[in-house]
Amino acid sequence: MESDLTFTDQARAAQDASRSLATAGRRLKDQALHAMADALAAAEASVLAANADDVAAGRASGMSDALIDRLALTPARLAGMVQGLRDVAALPDPVGDVLRGWTNPNGVQVRQIRVPFGVVGIIYEGRPNVTADAAGICVKSGNAALLRGSSSAFNSNRATVAALQDGLAAAGLPRTCVQLVEGGREVTAEMMAARGLIDVLIPRGGAGLINAVVEGSKVPVIETGTGNCHVFVDATADLDVALDILLNAKVQRPSVCNAAETLLVHRAVADAFLPRAIAALGEAGVTVHGTPQVRAFSDAVVPAADDEFDAEYLSLDLAAAVVADLDEALDHIRHHSTGHSETIVTASIANADRFVAEVDAAAVLVNASSRFVDGGEFGFGAEIGISTQKLHARGPMALPEMTSTKYVLTGQGQTRP
Amino acid sequence: MESDLTFTDQARAAQDASRSLATAGRRLKDQALHAMADALAAAEASVLAANADDVAAGRASGMSDALIDRLALTPARLAGMVQGLRDVAALPDPVGDVLRGWTNPNGVQVRQIRVPFGVVGIIYEGRPNVTADAAGICVKSGNAALLRGSSSAFNSNRATVAALQDGLAAAGLPRTCVQLVEGGREVTAEMMAARGLIDVLIPRGGAGLINAVVEGSKVPVIETGTGNCHVFVDATADLDVALDILLNAKVQRPSVCNAAETLLVHRAVADAFLPRAIAALGEAGVTVHGTPQVRAFSDAVVPAADDEFDAEYLSLDLAAAVVADLDEALDHIRHHSTGHSETIVTASIANADRFVAEVDAAAVLVNASSRFVDGGEFGFGAEIGISTQKLHARGPMALPEMTSTKYVLTGQGQTRP
Repeated sequence: MESDLTFTDQARAAQDASRSLATAGRRLKDQALHAMADALAAAEASVLAANADDVAAGRASGMSDALIDRLALTPARLAGMVQGLRDVAALPDPVGDVLRGWTNPNGVQVRQIRVPFGVVGIIYEGRPNVTADAAGICVKSGNAALLRGSSSAFNSNRATVAALQDGLAAAGLPRTCVQLVEGGREVTAEMMAARGLIDVLIPRGGAGLINAVVEGSKVPVIETGTGNCHVFVDATADLDVALDILLNAKVQRPSVCNAAETLLVHRAVADAFLPRAIAALGEAGVTVHGTPQVRAFSDAVVPAADDEFDAEYLSLDLAAAVVADLDEALDHIRHHSTGHSETIVTASIANADRFVAEVDAAAVLVNASSRFVDGGEFGFGAEIGISTQKLHARGPMALPEMTSTKYVLTGQGQTRP
Repeated sequence: MESDLTFTDQARAAQDASRSLATAGRRLKDQALHAMADALAAAEASVLAANADDVAAGRASGMSDALIDRLALTPARLAGMVQGLRDVAALPDPVGDVLRGWTNPNGVQVRQIRVPFGVVGIIYEGRPNVTADAAGICVKSGNAALLRGSSSAFNSNRATVAALQDGLAAAGLPRTCVQLVEGGREVTAEMMAARGLIDVLIPRGGAGLINAVVEGSKVPVIETGTGNCHVFVDATADLDVALDILLNAKVQRPSVCNAAETLLVHRAVADAFLPRAIAALGEAGVTVHGTPQVRAFSDAVVPAADDEFDAEYLSLDLAAAVVADLDEALDHIRHHSTGHSETIVTASIANADRFVAEVDAAAVLVNASSRFVDGGEFGFGAEIGISTQKLHARGPMALPEMTSTKYVLTGQGQTRP
């Protein structure tokens, strides 16, 4: 259906729909989310059939097994998408929250309240479950969604959005609250140029996609981040704790942005820590890419090329270096960090304080695994991504981060002297 | 001094300085602000002499009296800049504020704390007092400032920044906490491309400057806005109150962004209100530009061209139209608003509620003058501008809006199962 519309038609329809959503109120939005969940569950057969077409096309084009796995939907994954919509319905509505309020000396009352952005554009790769997740978060936060998914998931996304729109209509909201944006690369460019039509653009995917959107967009962007996350093992670290944290941060789920990519070890504990760490990492299937100082501890360590300390492996690989002291660790992180999540393992209050104060990142961790930097772990209940920019939202973004604010001033005829 | 440096040199120096500022603490920053005030007061003769050169050059180039007035510094205006720095020192420091905090079930403590952006670039026109005001707000909020002033105020800005840097040095902070960015238009382009060097860019000036920065920048921008502000006089309005508010919003200071530019009158009160309003506006020196319905009330009303309802006059001019009802008023505002400050005068709770809910603007006012939408009137004590974008900050921006946040997670070795 939507493929007959121009992008501008879709964006105008989204603006109209966003006005319905902005004043819908929590009860109606939650009814819509449950209706979307019902409709998606009812459409299981058509969504899985459409996904099978995408998977077949992916295999035919030589897509890797890992990417096929990201693309493929199963009854269990679809059930997860359905449950995700119901979970968002159960969360508090951020819209209407009063953030600040006061009465001026002249009696004018001022309140700062949360309001939806309006129209949110999301440009994403791969996983078709993002389609339902993003739609649910946008509807709950009162925003119309323009979803620009990957062409590899085209059929899956189309079937999913059709079901979600059926749910919106069943609840009495415009189908255009959630739209799939179809077309070639020129449509992505149109989205990035749509200042005044799209209020916020959120790219989700690899560094190439994110950089292209951040650099090319005239619409305000929330950058969701790549994570070149460091673990620094300080001279005073409890080495058992350091090993637990390192292994967890690297191995528990290596394909995600809050996984560790670089190990920095204080030279005072290099002898005691690195042989144990290299052995344990090896047993866990991790290839360590080390500087000559690290390679001296084990033949299992492969050489780290110059640019590997800037790499986000997202795999069972880890760059490793020895540093002279905290200053060198801070300097290394300053030069290589992507500003996502950075960890120190230490027993020293002074060093923990300096690390927290001086490392410039969305999250800084002391004696805990960076895998905790996550909307679910934070108890947010829903997450649209992890922002690595400093404007608007930094770190895991949930429903409140999907809103703007408005000042409401109420008087009885006051004027300014 | 700075003219010998490339822009990249200056930006790198600003990054280094921002690290000193980020960990400086309130006491040191306040000492620096007072030292900057002292140094600026001591430099009065050189700043005024430099300003006289700018004014002479402006006159020679045919600059209008209004612009000369904006450009000219006097001992009183300079004293205001000095006092502004001391006032900022007296304000609370937003850096380090804990916005949220909780303990996860596993014992990991999470805190979200305010941190400086890092390096803030400000591109502005005209008034040389912005140089000191912006420098003070940046230093207090822990940000290094790269100030790109107008070429017409070049000598004034250079002398001002030299004095401010003397103050920074006297307090033991790097002079490069505040730098003037000199050079031709290509330097503005370099600032807009400086992703990774500048954290946030804030344009302050006319619509042309702001649009150029918003559309061209790869660095995240906070859009400070032009204001095409509407006053809607509803059918139930107290017409005395409506006239007070209209006159105040239009006349009290017509050159600023929160001044009224368009009057919309419900047709039910057009007969009773418009003749009085047109007469009172005329006495106050305002030219009313009206639709034929408005012109029918008075020969003093000049015709409004089609595009005048999009104009930000910033002068003693006002566009005026009659609307059939609240819906038509909302529709007019939706099509012409710049999203700054919109006012309804009404006695109806239902209409006030709809106006507040449906008008999409940084500020919405019920029975009060839009001139109250101002950091000073809000009690913020300092204002870097009024944001009309929905990301990060919307409305008057003060010290807290000049910060980002950072999550700090503290554990005792916790890992993710």
